[in-house]
Amino acid sequence: MNLISIVLVRTTHPGNIGATARAMKTMGLADLRLVVPKVFPAAEVTARAAGADDILDTASVYKSLSEAVSDCALVYGTTARMRSIPWPCVSPEQAAGQIIRSMSEGRRAALVFGRESSGLSNRELELCNRMIVIPSNPDFSSLNLAAAVQILCYEIHKHAIGDVLPAADKLPAVTMEDMDRFYAQLEQCLIEIGFLDPDRPRRLMRRLKSLFSRVDPDQNEYNILRGILAAVQEIAGRGDG
Amino acid sequence: MNLISIVLVRTTHPGNIGATARAMKTMGLADLRLVVPKVFPAAEVTARAAGADDILDTASVYKSLSEAVSDCALVYGTTARMRSIPWPCVSPEQAAGQIIRSMSEGRRAALVFGRESSGLSNRELELCNRMIVIPSNPDFSSLNLAAAVQILCYEIHKHAIGDVLPAADKLPAVTMEDMDRFYAQLEQCLIEIGFLDPDRPRRLMRRLKSLFSRVDPDQNEYNILRGILAAVQEIAGRGDG
Repeated sequence: MNLISIVLVRTTHPGNIGATARAMKTMGLADLRLVVPKVFPAAEVTARAAGADDILDTASVYKSLSEAVSDCALVYGTTARMRSIPWPCVSPEQAAGQIIRSMSEGRRAALVFGRESSGLSNRELELCNRMIVIPSNPDFSSLNLAAAVQILCYEIHKHAIGDVLPAADKLPAVTMEDMDRFYAQLEQCLIEIGFLDPDRPRRLMRRLKSLFSRVDPDQNEYNILRGILAAVQEIAGRGDG
Repeated sequence: MNLISIVLVRTTHPGNIGATARAMKTMGLADLRLVVPKVFPAAEVTARAAGADDILDTASVYKSLSEAVSDCALVYGTTARMRSIPWPCVSPEQAAGQIIRSMSEGRRAALVFGRESSGLSNRELELCNRMIVIPSNPDFSSLNLAAAVQILCYEIHKHAIGDVLPAADKLPAVTMEDMDRFYAQLEQCLIEIGFLDPDRPRRLMRRLKSLFSRVDPDQNEYNILRGILAAVQEIAGRGDG
């Protein structure tokens, strides 16, 4: 279970950090990552952790979400609301199954929880491969932060102790850093072929990221994609000269 | 969902009553019953309810558990620890299934949560038909009271709605014929940029089909992909001329 990270982004209330540590420990999770917490450490954090002090002691603090998830192969955003922008969505059960499977392949998964008030920003959302939508009352979907953590840790624990899924014989997946390099090259390439106007980018790159985040390519596929981009860029450069 | 009651027995911390109301409302439950709460009502209860005030306003207070569950057909105790005394035990999922079924027969079910410190007494336990055992870390099963309520309300809500993802407002997906046209254009394009040698195609197209079949693009994304290919082909043609 050490291959699953819980990431809290810009948490305002210290009590929620403590309650998150407690929720994690009750379900056997241990790796807590905090992106710019407003108050940490603090007495209220420790009080609400109610004995899960070891989770707090080993928690890491990061300056940005991208830094916090750079070593993760699978990054899940979380929400109890449906977003209007299209993004690949999974249920908590589906995510738990995927995470347990990826764990068995030695890949790290992160579950990212946004601010209490406003969730994740669009920029942060783009760092996520998928969104976990926690089913909730459409008229009152305001889940407490630590309660959302508790639900997802519970689903993961339930799947972990349940029937173990056989590991798929897949090549190692690429990391978020790899995908960032791919997106940068893709954007550059689209500019060079005249498909993307850098002065009027509209939502093209966000749409393409949403599309490729569904692919979750293995290393082989990743190399093919980058090779295609390089071939296009070579042709585009030749046309100019 | 009005046929499901959440019963808190001798709750010590007022914050837990508020957090319980919030947890219930996020999952569409409404009937809260309090057996001898230490502090109720209170400002802290309302603060932690975070907008679930209607649950608090209609909550009833009882002098004993037997009084609180007198109109219930099914009474579940709850614990995150295995008890040494023998009692019929079910998982949260099993309980949720039973409760949804009993609801459809017009029978009221109660979920009973004991004291923060010591759970339910043996006398209270005897008023329960069954125990719900929430799976947890055997070395740290100290679930927060409202977190336990959240998990069980989540399981009930999930069973009630059938674990379907809320419908994303996705554009119509493309057909297999559309994808065939896309693959033909992709292959042609890869030949034109010199990435694919038609005399030694190896497995490249099969790999790319496997990759894009995972994308399952909507009409909008499909148009973007074909537009990119067209732009590449135009550049490639220009280089030749």
